[in-house]
Amino acid sequence: MEKREDKQEEEQEQVVNPWEVTAKDGGKIDYDKLIDKFGCQRLEEPLVDRVQRLTGRPAHVFLRRGVFFAHRDFDEILNGYEKGKKFYLYTGRGPSSEALHLGHLVPFMFTKYLQDAFKVPLVIQLTDDEKCMWKNLSVEECQRLARENAKDIIACGFDVTKTFIFSDFDYVGGSFYKNMVRIAKCVTYNKVVGIFGFSGEDHIGKVSFPPIQAAPSFPSSFPHLFSGKDDLRCLIPCAIDQDPYFRMTRDVAPRLGYHKPSLIESSFFPALQGETGKMSASDPNSAIYVTDSAKVIKNKINKYAFSGGQDSIEKHRELGANLEVDIPVKYLSFFLEDDAELEHIKTEYGAGRMLTGEVKKRLADVLTELVDRHRAARAAVTEEMVDAFMAVRPLPNMFD
Amino acid sequence: MEKREDKQEEEQEQVVNPWEVTAKDGGKIDYDKLIDKFGCQRLEEPLVDRVQRLTGRPAHVFLRRGVFFAHRDFDEILNGYEKGKKFYLYTGRGPSSEALHLGHLVPFMFTKYLQDAFKVPLVIQLTDDEKCMWKNLSVEECQRLARENAKDIIACGFDVTKTFIFSDFDYVGGSFYKNMVRIAKCVTYNKVVGIFGFSGEDHIGKVSFPPIQAAPSFPSSFPHLFSGKDDLRCLIPCAIDQDPYFRMTRDVAPRLGYHKPSLIESSFFPALQGETGKMSASDPNSAIYVTDSAKVIKNKINKYAFSGGQDSIEKHRELGANLEVDIPVKYLSFFLEDDAELEHIKTEYGAGRMLTGEVKKRLADVLTELVDRHRAARAAVTEEMVDAFMAVRPLPNMFD
Repeated sequence: MEKREDKQEEEQEQVVNPWEVTAKDGGKIDYDKLIDKFGCQRLEEPLVDRVQRLTGRPAHVFLRRGVFFAHRDFDEILNGYEKGKKFYLYTGRGPSSEALHLGHLVPFMFTKYLQDAFKVPLVIQLTDDEKCMWKNLSVEECQRLARENAKDIIACGFDVTKTFIFSDFDYVGGSFYKNMVRIAKCVTYNKVVGIFGFSGEDHIGKVSFPPIQAAPSFPSSFPHLFSGKDDLRCLIPCAIDQDPYFRMTRDVAPRLGYHKPSLIESSFFPALQGETGKMSASDPNSAIYVTDSAKVIKNKINKYAFSGGQDSIEKHRELGANLEVDIPVKYLSFFLEDDAELEHIKTEYGAGRMLTGEVKKRLADVLTELVDRHRAARAAVTEEMVDAFMAVRPLPNMFD
Repeated sequence: MEKREDKQEEEQEQVVNPWEVTAKDGGKIDYDKLIDKFGCQRLEEPLVDRVQRLTGRPAHVFLRRGVFFAHRDFDEILNGYEKGKKFYLYTGRGPSSEALHLGHLVPFMFTKYLQDAFKVPLVIQLTDDEKCMWKNLSVEECQRLARENAKDIIACGFDVTKTFIFSDFDYVGGSFYKNMVRIAKCVTYNKVVGIFGFSGEDHIGKVSFPPIQAAPSFPSSFPHLFSGKDDLRCLIPCAIDQDPYFRMTRDVAPRLGYHKPSLIESSFFPALQGETGKMSASDPNSAIYVTDSAKVIKNKINKYAFSGGQDSIEKHRELGANLEVDIPVKYLSFFLEDDAELEHIKTEYGAGRMLTGEVKKRLADVLTELVDRHRAARAAVTEEMVDAFMAVRPLPNMFD
């Protein structure tokens, strides 16, 4: 009953689940409301300071600028780490498109930082089975996309001695499957309907999937990595739309005698058109892809990036830009690393001394550099490297 | 709507599904009704004759006495066989008990006959995952039971060069998992509720299971056996309570470009107390186990086997036994191979010239011999033999 009311409220307002992110009409996603609704914790400055202190390096841009803004028990991960207890990272991707866009890179860029800063192993799940079941794609096509996407992920710079990338179609089985069964036993159909909103006309593959995304949260799903380390804790960096899966997982964990996974959760990388949803691969004009050329990037930004600048130069000089809704500034806050320069742009643009065109120009340069760098790194990824990352193998130096 | 009415009717009458077999109160299972309800075909004498002709050996007792009484497209399997097209056999067991009872042996004894007569390969699925999800048993306990049950199955005399036995916990993955996903995509939640009667409070493991029992119906689930033989047809010998799984499978098959599996279906081996249900492992006094001693068998038969004989010797001599409800005669029709002797017993007993005690004595001898033979065969099954049957390996001589 409670759940149904909950759902009605959600429909009147914003929808955030693993398959849909929509703000209340015309507005922005209300992340405060999301934290309340999901019951996660706000990631505040003292925790960011603590990360800097423990890792001995500056916090990542995404952390110090609040892109990763919520968490579940991240403090417990840090408590353990402080006492010498390592953990492992788990993140993933549903491979439904050939080329990644910038929003897709966010969790991987951040996860790479976490891996480097904490010196911990990482498992990356490619849910080719999920995409096969949700999209009208064949098993073979999803496996091909998984491998293509793995190249983009590897291009983010992960350490092969600490990273295991796996496709569900390849890896589901054995210890992983046993955990899937243990998890499924603890979750009723009514429960998944409450969490994910499935209907009776949905196919049973959808109903079967949540334990598959839950299983990597438990070290016993990876005996080749974590055999005898059942006590190892798991930290999951992800966008907050994935929270429903891990709420379910955390609910189940104690009943299986497992640790609850901890989470560190990001806001969505917005579409060029504005912050009403997340950048979507299904509308090519809403997204900048890692395959876009400098010219395409420049055109997309000039044509589609929602501006907080005023209609006329005179008015702009007088009132300044509305930074709250301005997409170029938002994008720069994700990808322009120089805090001083970002502050300068915000001050000048907000005061009307800088024009939208100038900000867009700077953004185009920043993104072109990022995309060029990614493209070069991806071109250097060989099939052998993909095989190496995806081999089911022990990682003897994963904590060094 | 049709399905709901169907279910109500079923509840008023008999219930036959993979987890429950109950006749309309006090009565016998109505197999004619079951054939109509499930929509399978009656296995009539001309088909039995054809099997004898094609295999050049007498039909198995279970076939010529109507224990296997229904089928789906078994005639198509024979049509193909006649033209030189081989097929493969698929049967299975849910390993929830330590020791098998006689009812459990029926499909395996019959499957062994089919394997020998048609010279075809066989896959045997041990659904340890199912039992873990339905019963309150751990993953480890179900795997142990699967291996113990495999020994009883091997003791039935299967040919290791033609037989692959697998546990789901060990084997689910790869090509098998891909077929599970393909199948799950084609079946809605409402559909499985219609077929299996799950409720919203059932856990999602139950909802996820039907594709797992369906997958072995398709040769591509076993690339180490049938690679490049996607056209190979599958024949499933099973008790008729498993029909719902394969109705679902047959429904899905054409949408995946696969052959529908064919079925040959048995009635239930009745409890000692009478033909109102099937022999159940949960009531030890309803069943004769392969571990029972000669003395236990004799006592169980004398104490519990429902007799069609009359209350007094005088009345019995006058009226004779009611063979329709007599369990000793029913059991003899399963396990006494000599047709002439069985006919003789039925005539004499039915005419009142033979007494219940004499028939029960003959049955005790027949079952003791069967059980002793099984126990000796099982004692000869080594761990190495189990490993050999369960190894994921090609079977180069499986059609010889």
